[in-house]
Amino acid sequence: MRTLIVSGYGVKIAVEKGVLKVVNGKEKLSVNLVDLEQIVIVTSGVSITSKAVRSIIYHGVDLVFLNHRGEPIGRVYPPYINRTVNTRRMQYLAYLNGKGAKIAKVTAECKLRNQAGLLRRFSRNTGDRELKVMAYEILKYVDEVRNLNGSLEKIRGEIVSIEAKAARIYWPMVAKLLPENIGFQGREQDGFDPFNIALNYGYGILYSESWKALVLAGLDPYAGFIHADRSGKPTLSFDFVEMFRCSIVDFVLLKMFRKRWKPRVENGILDYKSRAEIAKNIIEGFERKVRIQGEPLTLRQAMKRAAFNLASFIRGDSSLFKGFVEDW
Amino acid sequence: MRTLIVSGYGVKIAVEKGVLKVVNGKEKLSVNLVDLEQIVIVTSGVSITSKAVRSIIYHGVDLVFLNHRGEPIGRVYPPYINRTVNTRRMQYLAYLNGKGAKIAKVTAECKLRNQAGLLRRFSRNTGDRELKVMAYEILKYVDEVRNLNGSLEKIRGEIVSIEAKAARIYWPMVAKLLPENIGFQGREQDGFDPFNIALNYGYGILYSESWKALVLAGLDPYAGFIHADRSGKPTLSFDFVEMFRCSIVDFVLLKMFRKRWKPRVENGILDYKSRAEIAKNIIEGFERKVRIQGEPLTLRQAMKRAAFNLASFIRGDSSLFKGFVEDW
Repeated sequence: MRTLIVSGYGVKIAVEKGVLKVVNGKEKLSVNLVDLEQIVIVTSGVSITSKAVRSIIYHGVDLVFLNHRGEPIGRVYPPYINRTVNTRRMQYLAYLNGKGAKIAKVTAECKLRNQAGLLRRFSRNTGDRELKVMAYEILKYVDEVRNLNGSLEKIRGEIVSIEAKAARIYWPMVAKLLPENIGFQGREQDGFDPFNIALNYGYGILYSESWKALVLAGLDPYAGFIHADRSGKPTLSFDFVEMFRCSIVDFVLLKMFRKRWKPRVENGILDYKSRAEIAKNIIEGFERKVRIQGEPLTLRQAMKRAAFNLASFIRGDSSLFKGFVEDW
Repeated sequence: MRTLIVSGYGVKIAVEKGVLKVVNGKEKLSVNLVDLEQIVIVTSGVSITSKAVRSIIYHGVDLVFLNHRGEPIGRVYPPYINRTVNTRRMQYLAYLNGKGAKIAKVTAECKLRNQAGLLRRFSRNTGDRELKVMAYEILKYVDEVRNLNGSLEKIRGEIVSIEAKAARIYWPMVAKLLPENIGFQGREQDGFDPFNIALNYGYGILYSESWKALVLAGLDPYAGFIHADRSGKPTLSFDFVEMFRCSIVDFVLLKMFRKRWKPRVENGILDYKSRAEIAKNIIEGFERKVRIQGEPLTLRQAMKRAAFNLASFIRGDSSLFKGFVEDW
């Protein structure tokens, strides 16, 4: 995936004989369109000629515009079937053929494996054997997920209920790992204790990164599999984050809280300094090198790869959706 | 549907406080984005700022780029669900819910009605009563189409077979209307007689216009209903043209040939002059005023309207797909 990122102000994108010219004052960059897969325009100060747009489309290069928060907000699609168009089509059809069910199962399996992995990791660090035992209890649910059969409609509810059973093992163990004075009684989205509030904030950052990764891979973040397709809700992001919650948020916050860090909460809201500290740790956490099936990658790379793998599985270019499981 | 067409060379599109500025040398046009639904960039000499693209997306305005032949080749889609995204999603899902079957039936019905209409029209002009009798024979097949029940997969083949039966009535009547020396024995895509060759050329023009109308309405021309979804074939265009063949091509060519016009064919190919004459007549034919359910429209307007009606039926904004039937 060769991506050209164009940022700055007063930058001009033109084309001459199939070669893209990016001119920034006196600086000039020439890129052959055949060498590119994606062009991402980051700032508002870039101008592009319609001739360049035509040429970009003609070469099957993906042209994406970001907003000022760095989120992809627009992409140029040709009316004929190229890779991105095909990804979307196949994604909508995956609801109804077996692929959606397969993706839902793999996603859930990854979530459970990472929950178990996190517990095992802390069991090694703390010597607490109960964590390890409970990790195995969670892994039993992996088989329950794997054994599910039938349409997406049918298994969606069963997946959610298996995840709920695993959560009743996972969160009490997380609670055990936290200092007692935190008052964490279990995961509650509307909980007012500092850990639940910190989780909500951390998951917010995770959502935004997942959404970007999915859109850049050509997927529709609003058309999920486990989470029903509620129009207007980014349900594919909801599905996708399940695989990353442990590695990107739970792990980082557990480490922070175990070092006796505590956020300041006022009227149920984190103060500015606490938010900044959580954001800093989570963003740094994205650069943490993990091993995935033996291969070292940063979590950011792993997320991007999982999104592209999901897109290529949906398109049928890849026969396997691997999901994301950290080698804890 | 308010559309802004931008053409010319050295034209710049920028945005200031939500107002689009189109600057062409000293000429300057300001358009409030809230008043627009679509911006069509026609030439290669237009440049647009990324800030304007952001603003266009933000306002839900459809941005379309044409190639040098005037065909839409790219469109900017946001990753969230706006009207165009929704049209595509619903189009892919229409295969599998009842909507696709409904569209297939209406399309076939319109085709049959227009075949019958054309025969009735020539029956009035020529006084040949057999044409009128055969028009009624064709209309009997409308009921057969209407009575079809079941999934798209199931009825698709039945529609094709009903259309074939009607064709065995329609084309012999067309043959009867042609001067004898033309040697037209019936419709054959690979036929070498002048009328079949002229039909092929005329349908080619029709395809291109239909494709444009569908794409501008936000539809995927490659995802049809009657014609199976063969990847890479514009099967929705194939479906859509069925309703217009009679009014736009058959009628015009019949009139030309009945005036003793004859194309020059060399090695099975029309010569340049004959192609130009057919193209001129068909393009003028698009401006012919017809009545559709009593309302006067040019065929070009009627085609555009049918494409937008199809898109809004697919999205669910309109409860009825009317198709296109000329009041012959």
